Amino acid sequence: MIKLCIDCFGGDHSPAANVSGALMALDALPDLELVLTGDEELIKKELDGKSFDGKRLSIVHAPEVISCDETPTAAIKQKKESSLMKAIELVRSDETVHGVVTTGSTGALVAAATLRVGRIPGVKRPAFCPILPTMKGGIVGICDSGANVDISVRMLCQFAIMGSLYLKCACGMESPRAALLNIGVEETKGDELRKSAYPVMKGMDNINFAGNMEARELLSGDYDLVVCDGFSGNVLVKSTEGACLEMLKKLKRDIYSRTINKIGALLMKKMFDEEKRFMDYRNYGGSVLLGLKKIVVKGHGSSNDVAVEKCIEQAYRMQTADLTERTSREIGAFNELHEELPN
Amino acid sequence: MIKLCIDCFGGDHSPAANVSGALMALDALPDLELVLTGDEELIKKELDGKSFDGKRLSIVHAPEVISCDETPTAAIKQKKESSLMKAIELVRSDETVHGVVTTGSTGALVAAATLRVGRIPGVKRPAFCPILPTMKGGIVGICDSGANVDISVRMLCQFAIMGSLYLKCACGMESPRAALLNIGVEETKGDELRKSAYPVMKGMDNINFAGNMEARELLSGDYDLVVCDGFSGNVLVKSTEGACLEMLKKLKRDIYSRTINKIGALLMKKMFDEEKRFMDYRNYGGSVLLGLKKIVVKGHGSSNDVAVEKCIEQAYRMQTADLTERTSREIGAFNELHEELPN
Repeated sequence: MIKLCIDCFGGDHSPAANVSGALMALDALPDLELVLTGDEELIKKELDGKSFDGKRLSIVHAPEVISCDETPTAAIKQKKESSLMKAIELVRSDETVHGVVTTGSTGALVAAATLRVGRIPGVKRPAFCPILPTMKGGIVGICDSGANVDISVRMLCQFAIMGSLYLKCACGMESPRAALLNIGVEETKGDELRKSAYPVMKGMDNINFAGNMEARELLSGDYDLVVCDGFSGNVLVKSTEGACLEMLKKLKRDIYSRTINKIGALLMKKMFDEEKRFMDYRNYGGSVLLGLKKIVVKGHGSSNDVAVEKCIEQAYRMQTADLTERTSREIGAFNELHEELPN
Repeated sequence: MIKLCIDCFGGDHSPAANVSGALMALDALPDLELVLTGDEELIKKELDGKSFDGKRLSIVHAPEVISCDETPTAAIKQKKESSLMKAIELVRSDETVHGVVTTGSTGALVAAATLRVGRIPGVKRPAFCPILPTMKGGIVGICDSGANVDISVRMLCQFAIMGSLYLKCACGMESPRAALLNIGVEETKGDELRKSAYPVMKGMDNINFAGNMEARELLSGDYDLVVCDGFSGNVLVKSTEGACLEMLKKLKRDIYSRTINKIGALLMKKMFDEEKRFMDYRNYGGSVLLGLKKIVVKGHGSSNDVAVEKCIEQAYRMQTADLTERTSREIGAFNELHEELPN
């Protein structure tokens, strides 16, 4: 049995989307058990009239909500009774709970999960690894996409290991091609961090190192994992999302500006609908926070029920594949081999 | 009279595009004088049969070409007789030559221009500032986009000054809104570099500081200049270009996959042509290398004649507005005010 804790508040469509997504996941996965945290009365209202296996669903009451505007460190101290903190505490203290899924504040999640759930021994920093669709129909992971901004070579190499394992365990990849994000493909390119990391990564036998990658190749489908510091990873993900969304917006504006375009677009409606679905983050699950003792999945703030369900299934697969244990082993082996690296 | 040196080799369409673009610029700007560098015989062949003002055009023979695959530092040492090095030497030694335009190797240009042309006194590092179109029909500059990867707060502030002046001088902006590229908009966000730079930039009265900007806002049209280190700037520009190009490619593929889409696209041909033109880098000039004693403009390697002409006009406007002199004054004033900053 896999047991996960679902934070039902803090998202744009909470608690409706979270509760409904939880029920969908319960329905799809017979050996899944869920604990929902949040205002009990409101959650019960969402459950009302719906059919589900009551033995596999429980509620832990949490009257408070941490919003995305709050300072994370202050919020996690002051709002112990929030749905997020209750979920985190449950994951921390209950051995039978394997992980947590939330659509709430990213900052509060990172702070609370790092402090309370704790890192896998040997892991220097937990790292975010979101997934984007590539133009060839596949996916690409980006690790780290924003949890750590000032980092070391050791951390970068650990991101490569954790990201690769995640893609193997949760996304069915056999040997993900891991590239180092850089400003050129040659081995000598980049800043001090990249120049020092390249030879180390090249020598690692637990990743499938594909050399340096320029940012323009992100969606090409030629790489499965992009390894980067959280600052440039954040720039990479957000500028890609921004460019795609702005282009779609412009296209839409231009279509509506002339009747002939509207007629053309009508004929192409099916295609445009497919493009929209292709671009929809909700079809690609959440951003996982890797390197912690338990599974942590962060869904997008605007997640609907389908997106929440995807996040839960993602956490389920990670636990089924024993990701935490495997990460612990591989990080341990790496650290032993690379004692010489500064932390 | 503005006198510029045009490196006619090293680009994908050299020397034809460079020579033809040079003639177009000569035609458009009556007080422009050009010196073309490269294989004299090949350049003369391109000029053959074309009408132009011979008094304002001369050729300096340079038999060698630096390709983009060569190591920049080795190439600039070994290929003194290359079209790029001849151009750089002319700019350096001839007081009447105001600047250089090239479509050749970026690395060789940065190395040669920095070493031979030299920085404006007080400028710590020259910085690239390319321009992208925004979705509101305007433009946005990015400084630095890749010349400097390990930088200081002082450099970042200088990039803000140089980029702002460039947008004023060459792009007709009155008071460009300069934003600091960061992973969140709050003042406390980011790595050590960004956290230290924010309060300094906030206090600068020669830039119109607009606070932190997330990468997804690049094309929104809400900012005129993005200030960043060369690593994340490079990621920002390349991922944006990559995402737009990959999306257009996907759209094209999807259109051709079904007859009904082809008919729709035919009706929307005018619109799609406009989108393509909108996305075409050639309409936005080259990437300028700011902070040097003379004007340096780097056109895209695949520049056609129109793109080369735009680059020349850009250099012309920069010189007409006395950009170098103004940069020298403003950087001097900044350094005097901020002696406390580490270099």
